[in-house]
Amino acid sequence: MSNHRRRPTMSNPRVQRTRARVLAVARDLLPELGPAGLTYAVLAERADVTRQTLYRHWPTRANLLSDLLLEGPDVGYPEPGDDVRTVATEWLVSLRAGLGDRRTRAAVHAVIAQTDHDPDSAQALTRIVENRHAAFNTLLEPSGRQITADEYSLLTSPVLFRLLVEGYEVTDHFIEAVVTQWLGRPD
Amino acid sequence: MSNHRRRPTMSNPRVQRTRARVLAVARDLLPELGPAGLTYAVLAERADVTRQTLYRHWPTRANLLSDLLLEGPDVGYPEPGDDVRTVATEWLVSLRAGLGDRRTRAAVHAVIAQTDHDPDSAQALTRIVENRHAAFNTLLEPSGRQITADEYSLLTSPVLFRLLVEGYEVTDHFIEAVVTQWLGRPD
Repeated sequence: MSNHRRRPTMSNPRVQRTRARVLAVARDLLPELGPAGLTYAVLAERADVTRQTLYRHWPTRANLLSDLLLEGPDVGYPEPGDDVRTVATEWLVSLRAGLGDRRTRAAVHAVIAQTDHDPDSAQALTRIVENRHAAFNTLLEPSGRQITADEYSLLTSPVLFRLLVEGYEVTDHFIEAVVTQWLGRPD
Repeated sequence: MSNHRRRPTMSNPRVQRTRARVLAVARDLLPELGPAGLTYAVLAERADVTRQTLYRHWPTRANLLSDLLLEGPDVGYPEPGDDVRTVATEWLVSLRAGLGDRRTRAAVHAVIAQTDHDPDSAQALTRIVENRHAAFNTLLEPSGRQITADEYSLLTSPVLFRLLVEGYEVTDHFIEAVVTQWLGRPD
């Protein structure tokens, strides 16, 4: 997921630097504190910003957690295109690359583990899926095709489940099988 | 997953009772200790058995953890059948029922969270997937069809990912969409 950078919405470079710095500190703290322990009080102290600053960037902790997971090392982002198969394949390849980063994977695992106890963690995962579904539809625009949330799940969950839960390697062959099956569904 | 009971391989009722009691104790300890903290030393003390007994039942901790996740409340187990669609649909329904148990879901989440640090946890998940794949093929025997590990992933991961990660409800309609897409894949 880390490969899916969101475009910065704030043009002020100083604001952007603060945001990036706080996210880096939060990412460092996550393994130590877990998602539920990553409170704004702790984060404000460690990142040396006010809690007001944190709330300005992330109105809820779910926003912060989802940004943490969405923004990792840059591994390339797919281009929009008019061929659905190509866009879908590149999307899965980029998901694989993003979650190939051990630290990103650990962060996602930590958030998954908290979903039973921490509503912010559960909401962060929902937000990420919605955000990625919307981003994928943006890439599909040249094709004239837009997909539903269920269709997005059907495309991505075999790859995500394999990477995050089963621990098997996601091969190019597997990605091709997923896309082929997905394209063959009845509309 | 908890709905997928494994047949006991030990006929001695006392051995079976010990096994069930240790698993119940382990399940109680899991939220407190986490999968990595659930060592045989701790478990032997709390369940009042010797470590030798534990090793006899579960040669590795990965075996113990996978049994913990596979055996939960009884929610019904699908019947073998000659219609692939029916067997596949009932399989997904029973996965949904098993993971509808909050405690089982929390246990799976805890094990997922440890896969980065604890090889036993990672291996437990791999074992569970292999075990369930084999069990599913057993149910399919009357149909004359057997499926590969990749095909098993394609069938089950949309439902499992939704239940375990996305946190969305798995509706009958979603299960039907998954099975339809899965059956439509090119062989």
